[in-house]
Amino acid sequence: MTFSPQKITIGFIGIGVMGKSMAGHLMAKGYRMHIYTRTKQKARELLDKGAIWEDSVASLALKCQVIISMVGYPHDVEEVYLGDGGIVANSRPGTITADMTTSSPELAGRIYSEAKARNVHALDAPVTGGDRGAREATLSIMVGGDESDFSAMLPVFECMGKTIVYQGSAGKGQHCKLANQIAIAMTLIGVCESLSYSRRAGLDEQKMLQSVSSGAAGSWQMSNMAPRMLKGDFAPGFFVKHLLKDLNIAAEQAARMGFNAPGLSLAKTLYDKLVALGEGESGTQALLKLYR
Amino acid sequence: MTFSPQKITIGFIGIGVMGKSMAGHLMAKGYRMHIYTRTKQKARELLDKGAIWEDSVASLALKCQVIISMVGYPHDVEEVYLGDGGIVANSRPGTITADMTTSSPELAGRIYSEAKARNVHALDAPVTGGDRGAREATLSIMVGGDESDFSAMLPVFECMGKTIVYQGSAGKGQHCKLANQIAIAMTLIGVCESLSYSRRAGLDEQKMLQSVSSGAAGSWQMSNMAPRMLKGDFAPGFFVKHLLKDLNIAAEQAARMGFNAPGLSLAKTLYDKLVALGEGESGTQALLKLYR
Repeated sequence: MTFSPQKITIGFIGIGVMGKSMAGHLMAKGYRMHIYTRTKQKARELLDKGAIWEDSVASLALKCQVIISMVGYPHDVEEVYLGDGGIVANSRPGTITADMTTSSPELAGRIYSEAKARNVHALDAPVTGGDRGAREATLSIMVGGDESDFSAMLPVFECMGKTIVYQGSAGKGQHCKLANQIAIAMTLIGVCESLSYSRRAGLDEQKMLQSVSSGAAGSWQMSNMAPRMLKGDFAPGFFVKHLLKDLNIAAEQAARMGFNAPGLSLAKTLYDKLVALGEGESGTQALLKLYR
Repeated sequence: MTFSPQKITIGFIGIGVMGKSMAGHLMAKGYRMHIYTRTKQKARELLDKGAIWEDSVASLALKCQVIISMVGYPHDVEEVYLGDGGIVANSRPGTITADMTTSSPELAGRIYSEAKARNVHALDAPVTGGDRGAREATLSIMVGGDESDFSAMLPVFECMGKTIVYQGSAGKGQHCKLANQIAIAMTLIGVCESLSYSRRAGLDEQKMLQSVSSGAAGSWQMSNMAPRMLKGDFAPGFFVKHLLKDLNIAAEQAARMGFNAPGLSLAKTLYDKLVALGEGESGTQALLKLYR
């Protein structure tokens, strides 16, 4: 099988903010696209551009050589892959799948094994870069699974991302994404405490940022999120509830590894509180509200 | 008074790694330079270039229109400024001083008031950028005190730094630096936990960094410190013991403000442990050792 757009049909499951852009890029490169998502209305734009609607995961799986999923939570991933009507049970031998949802490494491992038993090739390929990275095709894609499958899928990934790295065996893409989320969560706490400290100390927070952003305290979070926090813009680029989901998965993994990660524990506690305050649908920068 | 190199003599107190570079830049711009530091040997290079040695703070203070200090701990700052043989008691009226040590905002306020009572103009002007920033004259300088004194000193600061921001009244330079240290400490914890998680998960940490460094998890600490950690290079750019000093000052300030900063508390706990492990003289990136 070659992966030129002329030769293969891609199935895309999960047309949310991310999925819509990602599938759109693949279509723009000429790939034939079949799509399935829970709320058909969300697929409208892609259908208008020529994507073909499928009424179920099973019917999509039957028709595609490559299947990409971008759904919500691990239980969604489990259903889409391992359910009776799922990808593994209904794909043809030789199909390559890539779950780009941030999900659990163990689940990625189970999908890999069950898929392999049916001669289906499963990759876990979560991404960072958010809605903007999806829109601009500049995502970082972290891939776990067999390296030969990674190589075969590279042209497909390259339509959606800029930094595409093979991280190792099944689940390693997910582990890498979790490592990413740990760093993000801690950095955000630092940005929030730094801003809150400044406000209480009577500093002008904008001037503080001017002094510190470009130095050793600087971070993507500080450069991109602190200005939004100061404008009171807590709109979601990335949902609080999704970061909490990821931190919970990371904390479970850490516990399993016997890894004592006090920063991760603190982050989980703070984001738990934030969800309890009703901020689950806010952007992660809403963490600042805990400090006010 | 004008601040052209031809017209004024600068006194520099504290010729350590930072001070040597900073005083050197001022001399290179043509300022006459008198220096005092505890260990005369450390001043050798500057003396060879024409700086004039002073045997005491008092004798230096008598001869200079501008006095800059870059010493170790708040108690050193207190002695240098407020002791009997100190700057405040021995400077001529009209002298402008800038303490560039990272020290306590309250002490900066006391120095400002006691100096003002003798018609001496005191600024607090701590820096970020480390030894490299000092060497390359790219420091970020955060200044507290009277704005007119800041304006007068700007040409002097510009010889040593790139980002020079007036932060407000006396002590505000120090507050800004503390906000900087809070962000650094948290970001570093995130980098360490992210790396440690990766190692335990069986990832190649270099590949993990390749995937995450340029995205939303990215930071100066990740880009600059993580590669050194992975090489086992724990040499000090910035000492663990000095970061702990700063975190202690920040925590005292936070307590005074009634500011509950759980991230800062955690950072203080972790760096306390690191010093207890004998790593006080290592670079801050040695935090990784706590996780091994």
